[in-house]
Amino acid sequence: MITKNDLYKLAVKLFPINRSITGDGVRETLKILKAVCSSINVYEVPTGTQVFDWEIPKEWNIWDAYIEDEEGNRILNFKENNLHIVGYSKPIDTYMDLEELNNYIHSIVEYPEAIPYITSYYRENFGFCMAYEKRKNLEAGKYHVRIDSEFKDGSLTYGEIILPGKSKKEVFISTYICHPSMANNELSGPCVSIYLAKWLETIDRNYTYRIIFVPETIGSLTYLSKNLDEMKRNIIAGFNITCVGDNGNFSYIPSKYGNTLADKISKNVLNSHCDDYFTYSFLERGSDERQYCSPGVDLPVVSIMRSKYGEYKEYHTSKDDLSFISPEGLFGSFEIYKKCINALENNKCYRASKLGEPHLGKYGLYQNVGNTGITSYTRKISDFLVYCDGTNDLVDISNIINVPTEELIEISEVLKQNELIHLA
Amino acid sequence: MITKNDLYKLAVKLFPINRSITGDGVRETLKILKAVCSSINVYEVPTGTQVFDWEIPKEWNIWDAYIEDEEGNRILNFKENNLHIVGYSKPIDTYMDLEELNNYIHSIVEYPEAIPYITSYYRENFGFCMAYEKRKNLEAGKYHVRIDSEFKDGSLTYGEIILPGKSKKEVFISTYICHPSMANNELSGPCVSIYLAKWLETIDRNYTYRIIFVPETIGSLTYLSKNLDEMKRNIIAGFNITCVGDNGNFSYIPSKYGNTLADKISKNVLNSHCDDYFTYSFLERGSDERQYCSPGVDLPVVSIMRSKYGEYKEYHTSKDDLSFISPEGLFGSFEIYKKCINALENNKCYRASKLGEPHLGKYGLYQNVGNTGITSYTRKISDFLVYCDGTNDLVDISNIINVPTEELIEISEVLKQNELIHLA
Amino acid sequence: MITKNDLYKLAVKLFPINRSITGDGVRETLKILKAVCSSINVYEVPTGTQVFDWEIPKEWNIWDAYIEDEEGNRILNFKENNLHIVGYSKPIDTYMDLEELNNYIHSIVEYPEAIPYITSYYRENFGFCMAYEKRKNLEAGKYHVRIDSEFKDGSLTYGEIILPGKSKKEVFISTYICHPSMANNELSGPCVSIYLAKWLETIDRNYTYRIIFVPETIGSLTYLSKNLDEMKRNIIAGFNITCVGDNGNFSYIPSKYGNTLADKISKNVLNSHCDDYFTYSFLERGSDERQYCSPGVDLPVVSIMRSKYGEYKEYHTSKDDLSFISPEGLFGSFEIYKKCINALENNKCYRASKLGEPHLGKYGLYQNVGNTGITSYTRKISDFLVYCDGTNDLVDISNIINVPTEELIEISEVLKQNELIHLA
Repeated sequence: MITKNDLYKLAVKLFPINRSITGDGVRETLKILKAVCSSINVYEVPTGTQVFDWEIPKEWNIWDAYIEDEEGNRILNFKENNLHIVGYSKPIDTYMDLEELNNYIHSIVEYPEAIPYITSYYRENFGFCMAYEKRKNLEAGKYHVRIDSEFKDGSLTYGEIILPGKSKKEVFISTYICHPSMANNELSGPCVSIYLAKWLETIDRNYTYRIIFVPETIGSLTYLSKNLDEMKRNIIAGFNITCVGDNGNFSYIPSKYGNTLADKISKNVLNSHCDDYFTYSFLERGSDERQYCSPGVDLPVVSIMRSKYGEYKEYHTSKDDLSFISPEGLFGSFEIYKKCINALENNKCYRASKLGEPHLGKYGLYQNVGNTGITSYTRKISDFLVYCDGTNDLVDISNIINVPTEELIEISEVLKQNELIHLA
Repeated sequence: MITKNDLYKLAVKLFPINRSITGDGVRETLKILKAVCSSINVYEVPTGTQVFDWEIPKEWNIWDAYIEDEEGNRILNFKENNLHIVGYSKPIDTYMDLEELNNYIHSIVEYPEAIPYITSYYRENFGFCMAYEKRKNLEAGKYHVRIDSEFKDGSLTYGEIILPGKSKKEVFISTYICHPSMANNELSGPCVSIYLAKWLETIDRNYTYRIIFVPETIGSLTYLSKNLDEMKRNIIAGFNITCVGDNGNFSYIPSKYGNTLADKISKNVLNSHCDDYFTYSFLERGSDERQYCSPGVDLPVVSIMRSKYGEYKEYHTSKDDLSFISPEGLFGSFEIYKKCINALENNKCYRASKLGEPHLGKYGLYQNVGNTGITSYTRKISDFLVYCDGTNDLVDISNIINVPTEELIEISEVLKQNELIHLA
Repeated sequence: MITKNDLYKLAVKLFPINRSITGDGVRETLKILKAVCSSINVYEVPTGTQVFDWEIPKEWNIWDAYIEDEEGNRILNFKENNLHIVGYSKPIDTYMDLEELNNYIHSIVEYPEAIPYITSYYRENFGFCMAYEKRKNLEAGKYHVRIDSEFKDGSLTYGEIILPGKSKKEVFISTYICHPSMANNELSGPCVSIYLAKWLETIDRNYTYRIIFVPETIGSLTYLSKNLDEMKRNIIAGFNITCVGDNGNFSYIPSKYGNTLADKISKNVLNSHCDDYFTYSFLERGSDERQYCSPGVDLPVVSIMRSKYGEYKEYHTSKDDLSFISPEGLFGSFEIYKKCINALENNKCYRASKLGEPHLGKYGLYQNVGNTGITSYTRKISDFLVYCDGTNDLVDISNIINVPTEELIEISEVLKQNELIHLA
């Protein structure tokens, strides 16, 4: 039994690790995820490998970094917060006065207590990130600036879980593991995804599940470059899971044209279970759906999120921390994705077996309350049956008659037992 | 010449008869309808006949029923109102005290002056219906409870009119004749339908007309079970006529997907002639469209009504009486259905015979008023002609140019005479 | 370099000429237009020629006309304003008293300072038009009424420009040259059209351009009757240019079904460049789209206008004069049509050449501003590329991503140079 605390505790454990698009932080993260779901396999792709229009960069690792003033006070210390260092900073050990140093420090004036998150993957550079409230007090003088990092010919690391089902057709889940020490964006995605995998291991699967944990952009491109044909042949619906940890309302990014099975299922589940959710335009995409929905790839991938990247103040700062997410937030997202998967797994197309309305009374399915007519349960059965004409699947009927798909799954079981419907 | 009083007088004549889904009340009703339109043929289907998932029940007849108090006062008397007895009540002759009797009496506390209408066709039972204002004064004591009714192997009775037209393709009208002593629901349907038949006998018919008078549900199922193949092959549009007697605004229930010729015609006629009509969802269906639109049956059947069953206070009570309907209400419904039939009969697809706009002046069709431009009649001709491109029938063009179909029928006659259009 | 004054000066030059559907005024007009664009060829079609349902009427010319009072004062003088005479007035030289004369004078009581514009092409007649403020002062007495006009077997005159392009497929422009001494309706159309022709001569054309200057109705019918097959085979988009001279907001009349390439281009350009434009229904048509969109002709013709015929007070009166239009009004219309043509010429369908997002940084196309993310230029490139999947042309993508087509044309050039897209 997976609990909300399971999800949150995993986030707590993963939070301190310094992740990037390559390096040991990714490997350590995948090891912790494997402890939750042992089906995960870890792959390494060497530096220099061509992936479509890109190339796997050198692997980056970092052990220490700081800025010291003339008295030797560490006014910035990487060991206190991974965000203090611009991701993929080159090694450096030098002295500079404040004026020069200011060229290498990033802050947010409008959000003075937050350390921003900055990277420079594809342009050799270095830099520091500091809360503005601290930075503004820096005094003129010489500073010792040191970064103990390394670029090497190494590899890009990612994890993959394949859970076979009765059909070769696949449901695809992707999440990313390249963000250091931020909670909603992005530990929430890996935490929800690994527990979805753990749950999926326990159910009788109609579909095969492909669940991947990759660095954003370069990782999804790498994975696609190795698996595209198979993915295009098999994937019927996919979800890019990100920003699912806080208590905000659900939100949704459709696929490129909003017309895939993943869109249909997501909208149906959100309509049935969320009084108030927000639909973004695909133009507001910003995560790996950029790759999955690109021309020639064209996978049916959507995102159900809570507070979307770029849409909340704490985004990409040190304030997107463990207090920004919650056990309830994570678990609610886990549950909504389970509903989507449940709908996908059971989304059959039935045909009514009797001509005309069946005599529901014979089957104990006609419930009549006094003078006020049939019950809502009998009404649902009646409405369900009239649309079981071979042209609608369960989700279509749910949309037409405004009854959640999960209720229709139960009703369809009862009707099958009574031989009132059969597969179309 | 059919008048509004013809329709209302028929309702008055039919009102006192005790109808049910079987029995002599149905036969007497059909005899009176035959006096209006002799084309009606009456059929009997024996008890026990299987009709799809159902079986024709025993025939039920009732001669008398009452409740007497200890002094022999008849505190309820079936002869005063057919609704006093639960339909299909079994015979009984016994004594019971008030407490027990209360289990068998139905009333509506919120509508104390009305006798409710209750049936129990498929569960053997008995019961009485009484206005609450009368019931609440019943005093403790012994009561004599008597119902002189009978179940027997008999038959279910229905009427059918077939009026052949030039084409084997059919227009279908169905109404029901199983309701005792209620006016809008349901004597209005049979009264309007039989007079439509009488009118249809007099016109030059392009289509064949199939008009049936059946008990609701079991009757329509019975009819379908005997005629389904022919009906599916031939029916192009159908109307379930019910609740058409009062002065309320028109309302409309579409077919299952709202996309049949019957829907198209009905919406066009209602849009052209009713400032204010209400469209229900098919989910709010409740009459024989439940059978006609069921999977495998899938007939193009809609309902144009006035105050819909279940939507008015007097529904299924003794207050749905002859004062609830009116000659004008019945006749207005008769007229709207005539307009639908007229539109169906003349809904041709034409093509303009000239390239470019014709020189309307040559045909006396160009009417110009001083400086203010062409008349609305010339404008209608011009708009009609531009859409006579072989892709639109008259109803399509009516929808596009906002001119009633009946006006376009007249215009099309003029244009045909001038050889400005021809059948596409 | 075509300037706003070029367009306005042409209108000034054309304004005094007395045009009608035939006659020397049309010939003189075409001569002046030929001085702007020498590619124009002039055609004459003889009186009596059958054009579809019509016949070319006798040619009408007029030299003088007036009304004199008993003292010989000319109270109406054709030489002062062409509109004073009902178009196609027969010759007359007679005396009548005021009462009789009043039968032949047209005025607008509600617009007393304006002379109305009246014609009687197809019913032999004569008449005068006079401002009501002048007419109301006429005194009883004898009047000398004289019209020096002539009907003869002559011809109908029109102009045609054909500018060949790489493709035989054509863009069609039609405007009309039958209105005397009115500015917006109609000198604005010929002025804008002839300068579009002049500009088109200078560009590298993908499409062939067919630009015609015809009398309204009888002229477009004549032209169609001679060229219909070729036009139906080749024309991909057409514009009926009228009422484009004032400073009013743009407006738009779609083609018959609003679904042609001309509609798509026009709506896209108007949406991108006009905050506020008005879309009329095709039912409000009134110019030569009546012929071009008629059944069997069915050309993809729309109109982008400013203040539409019939929708402004000055319409068809002497007040639609040179002060009602402006250099800016004419030039803005010229520019909007250029944008349409530019969109048509470049409306290719591309496919992205790379799988996944390209590494835009490699091409200098990734512009990142500090912490705030990518620039709007990079965003546009990214949004453009994701829809370059072979199913969308540039205008489709413009509609989806809300970037003007002309910007996408520039972006597509850059992407082609970098081999990031290719023709689909």
